[in-house]
Amino acid sequence: MLLLRRCRSLTRLQRHQAAPCFASRAVRLCSSSTEDQRSHQRANWSANWKRIVAGVLTGTGAVVTYGLLHQEVEQADAGLPTTERSSSLPVFSHDEVTKHRSLEDGVWVTYKGGVYDVTEFVPIHPGGNKILLAAGGALEPFWALYAVHDQEYVLEILSQYKVGELSAEDLKKQGEAKASDPYSSDPERHPVLRINSKKPFNAEPPPEILTESYITPHVLFFKRNHLPVPQVDPASYRLQVEGLPRGALTLSLKDLKTRFPKHTVTATMQCAGNRRSDMNQVKEVKGLNWGISAIGNAKWSGARLRDVLLAAGFGPDVAKWARHVHFEGLDKDVTGSAYGTSIPINKAMNEDGDVLLAYEMNGEDIPADHGFPVRVVVPGVVGARNVKWLGRIVVSAEESSSHWQQHDYKGFSPGTDWSKVDHASSPAIQELPVQSAITVPADGAQIDRSDETLTVKGYAWSGGGREVVRVDVSLDGGKTWQVAQLRSGDKGQPDEPSPPPGRSWAWKLWELTAPLPPDADELEIICKAVDNSYNVQPDTIPPIWNLRGLLNNAWHRVKVKVTKD
Amino acid sequence: MLLLRRCRSLTRLQRHQAAPCFASRAVRLCSSSTEDQRSHQRANWSANWKRIVAGVLTGTGAVVTYGLLHQEVEQADAGLPTTERSSSLPVFSHDEVTKHRSLEDGVWVTYKGGVYDVTEFVPIHPGGNKILLAAGGALEPFWALYAVHDQEYVLEILSQYKVGELSAEDLKKQGEAKASDPYSSDPERHPVLRINSKKPFNAEPPPEILTESYITPHVLFFKRNHLPVPQVDPASYRLQVEGLPRGALTLSLKDLKTRFPKHTVTATMQCAGNRRSDMNQVKEVKGLNWGISAIGNAKWSGARLRDVLLAAGFGPDVAKWARHVHFEGLDKDVTGSAYGTSIPINKAMNEDGDVLLAYEMNGEDIPADHGFPVRVVVPGVVGARNVKWLGRIVVSAEESSSHWQQHDYKGFSPGTDWSKVDHASSPAIQELPVQSAITVPADGAQIDRSDETLTVKGYAWSGGGREVVRVDVSLDGGKTWQVAQLRSGDKGQPDEPSPPPGRSWAWKLWELTAPLPPDADELEIICKAVDNSYNVQPDTIPPIWNLRGLLNNAWHRVKVKVTKD
Repeated sequence: MLLLRRCRSLTRLQRHQAAPCFASRAVRLCSSSTEDQRSHQRANWSANWKRIVAGVLTGTGAVVTYGLLHQEVEQADAGLPTTERSSSLPVFSHDEVTKHRSLEDGVWVTYKGGVYDVTEFVPIHPGGNKILLAAGGALEPFWALYAVHDQEYVLEILSQYKVGELSAEDLKKQGEAKASDPYSSDPERHPVLRINSKKPFNAEPPPEILTESYITPHVLFFKRNHLPVPQVDPASYRLQVEGLPRGALTLSLKDLKTRFPKHTVTATMQCAGNRRSDMNQVKEVKGLNWGISAIGNAKWSGARLRDVLLAAGFGPDVAKWARHVHFEGLDKDVTGSAYGTSIPINKAMNEDGDVLLAYEMNGEDIPADHGFPVRVVVPGVVGARNVKWLGRIVVSAEESSSHWQQHDYKGFSPGTDWSKVDHASSPAIQELPVQSAITVPADGAQIDRSDETLTVKGYAWSGGGREVVRVDVSLDGGKTWQVAQLRSGDKGQPDEPSPPPGRSWAWKLWELTAPLPPDADELEIICKAVDNSYNVQPDTIPPIWNLRGLLNNAWHRVKVKVTKD
Repeated sequence: MLLLRRCRSLTRLQRHQAAPCFASRAVRLCSSSTEDQRSHQRANWSANWKRIVAGVLTGTGAVVTYGLLHQEVEQADAGLPTTERSSSLPVFSHDEVTKHRSLEDGVWVTYKGGVYDVTEFVPIHPGGNKILLAAGGALEPFWALYAVHDQEYVLEILSQYKVGELSAEDLKKQGEAKASDPYSSDPERHPVLRINSKKPFNAEPPPEILTESYITPHVLFFKRNHLPVPQVDPASYRLQVEGLPRGALTLSLKDLKTRFPKHTVTATMQCAGNRRSDMNQVKEVKGLNWGISAIGNAKWSGARLRDVLLAAGFGPDVAKWARHVHFEGLDKDVTGSAYGTSIPINKAMNEDGDVLLAYEMNGEDIPADHGFPVRVVVPGVVGARNVKWLGRIVVSAEESSSHWQQHDYKGFSPGTDWSKVDHASSPAIQELPVQSAITVPADGAQIDRSDETLTVKGYAWSGGGREVVRVDVSLDGGKTWQVAQLRSGDKGQPDEPSPPPGRSWAWKLWELTAPLPPDADELEIICKAVDNSYNVQPDTIPPIWNLRGLLNNAWHRVKVKVTKD
């Protein structure tokens, strides 16, 4: 009975939503569907599939497609019970569930103690095979992320796939932390993140999700922690501003929020180690093996550092000797040393520099992983200078003497190895160079020859407030180039207003839909960006290789196979 | 007698000055020198040649070496007549002189009506074979450039090589201009310049001379004129400042010099078409065929544009709508249209932007070819916006609508050809990307295997006030890299003081002396620079090729042959 109902709803769904590649797989699942039905389906598909494919590929499309799905489900299941909960279903352990993470082994998920085998739903999931990201684990974090699931009919659909209950013991285990661990009070993270290091926590989102939204939700924003996340009580939090003639200024969180105008800046932040994994493949480097998603774009709100320094006594006399502003975090290592770094004074004091002491990220209190209650946001500058859990600011004639300023986050020549590196010879990274990467398709993806066109997506950004003005995409390994479409907002939405020259702190998302090159079995897809200083990305990684694997901004390349069927 | 005297002085000179390669050629010229003398010479050379080679390679060295030369000449020629002018010498036409431009055909030069065959002097010229640049023509412009020649003993040396007189007719011809030509009032230019276009005049210096001095003498500074050089009377010159609520402000040259503080900025200026000739070889482009010397570094002095605009009424109300500042030259085409362009208002008004209305170049009135009496100097920005012979400034909400702003000086994707170019799709070039080039050795040069080491020299610069922090040099086509020595002053002199971050407007000169790679018959030498935003140069030209041949900042490559004597 259950199988029959699934086949009925699948058949109906195919007519309106499913793209051919999804549909053909769905048809194979329904052995009872007739040739007549299939002909009918095909006739309808040919009219609708282009719209549907476009819809499936985007968040907006997903909402539309879900709307259609809802309508179908209402028609198909009118009068049927909305859930099919039964105590007679078997009980599964968490370990058992985790074994089902692929189409081959079956795709199982849990939701509120229920276990669901959604293998058959994968081909018709309006969000495409992103559903596989949740395979073998809990749905809740994903549904929390994609609010489109927060509707009753979604539960109705899910209920059809229930195959068991999660063991009471495993349910209880979730959320238990080890009290003896210095990282035990670290916040919970979204399971979709790809973890590069658990302690300290360093993780990035899957690329194809990263560029789904112009503003990166905080749960997806890459986390780059050097130490355990400090627990800060906002009521007793105090920020020290030092080094100025009047003596130290101490500010509470309330002071920051009420004594200074609130500014909001949309700024992209990137780790200096973004794309290190590709550099690591050229020759081994030291550092976390970041993919291409150690970058994110958020709306940051807070007091301007400039305003705070002026209030603390910065004036023409100070300007004569002050050259740097130091930042110290409240995150401390076992010796009590805090994470610390500095930026040049001109960036801090420039009216157009937009450096914030931010207490909000995307309109909410900054989350623990991103620096609650206050982080410095230094737009256009490497992530490492955007100190989280900010405890202390010092105006100084000298650069920070910290490890992270003097012995890390610096670039070197490819010929420099650990035996001869002279850290004093190289400046601390501040502004970052022009960057771009391909988030869709993934390296190794298979493209169906019958698709006729290929859509390539990604991000592009440059440091120092330089606007990305063009992204070139090649489908033939760099022989020919096409210009991608850029946007500064979510797809289908108007772009954010253009910032003044020199203050383009936010990335551009880009997309190119082009005919599939004929006769190619494999494509090497490349992207490269140009900023408004006409700086470009270098062609290859070896000439920019450096022993710490920083600053990889060579052309990003992915290879995909073109299959016939 | 003359030959004998030459041999005597050469022999003496070799002991103290001549590097081995020069010396060996000098020895061949003196058939009377004995084996004993040669042994003695070799013993002395081994002690001195390293110092001497270093000296010969630099301007400072040339002075030192000339001092030694002077001493030798005094000793050798004590009691001899200082000149050997004789009416019995033959008379040569200018055409005859121009036939002698190489060691094979003889090296002839003229000086104040005398004709000199300096072939034998070439190997011992303290400035190396740069003397060949004057071959077949007049010495005066070169001696005017290199003040070291302005000493009596230099004339004494020259007099020994006199072979005739220049015909009176050809002497008279020099300096005659055609009155009917709109370019007839263009200033005289130094003959060392390599001319890309005579009318309008566009020319650049030989690369090996360009990087001899940190501050480029105005005669060597590349000339990029779009129209004939206008004749401007400094007494009646007026600058119009328009577009502001108070109405136009009119300033005389005296006003500019007396009403506003004088600021001096050392800034490098580069033509957007610098290095176009290499791009042209990839695929034909439109534009003047510039080599690598359409760039120069000068000290510019004048009033700050910001100060002038504030005096003209720029204030908070204007800041609300003003977005651009237009500049118009006094150089006009046949329709009366002036050269014009614009820059963003934030560059013009930024206290750290250092935009000047310059009336001096290298401490003197700006020469006619560089914009007398006033040119805009926009540090860090493409040469095209540094308008010469400035006549009019307009504050505006819009960019300049001129051809040079809207339909030229823009970058495009390599896939864009003239049939589909949309000029509106690309921003006008303002800041330029990171750049570097090799000036020594020249492409195609021959390196002597016995030299053991090779010295490579060049320049490096980046737009937008970004400081060049490293230059990597490869002697093996990019397989391995060595870091060059950077300097911000003349060789052997202290560097100029470091400018504040974001205001590094001047280039760096660089040099690398490295062992000659063993067993290589040919070397591909490459340089690439890194600026303090860690932007780098792209590896190759084809991916940055564009239909106008602008913005070529790919790695610069030269090939040299290594010969075994």
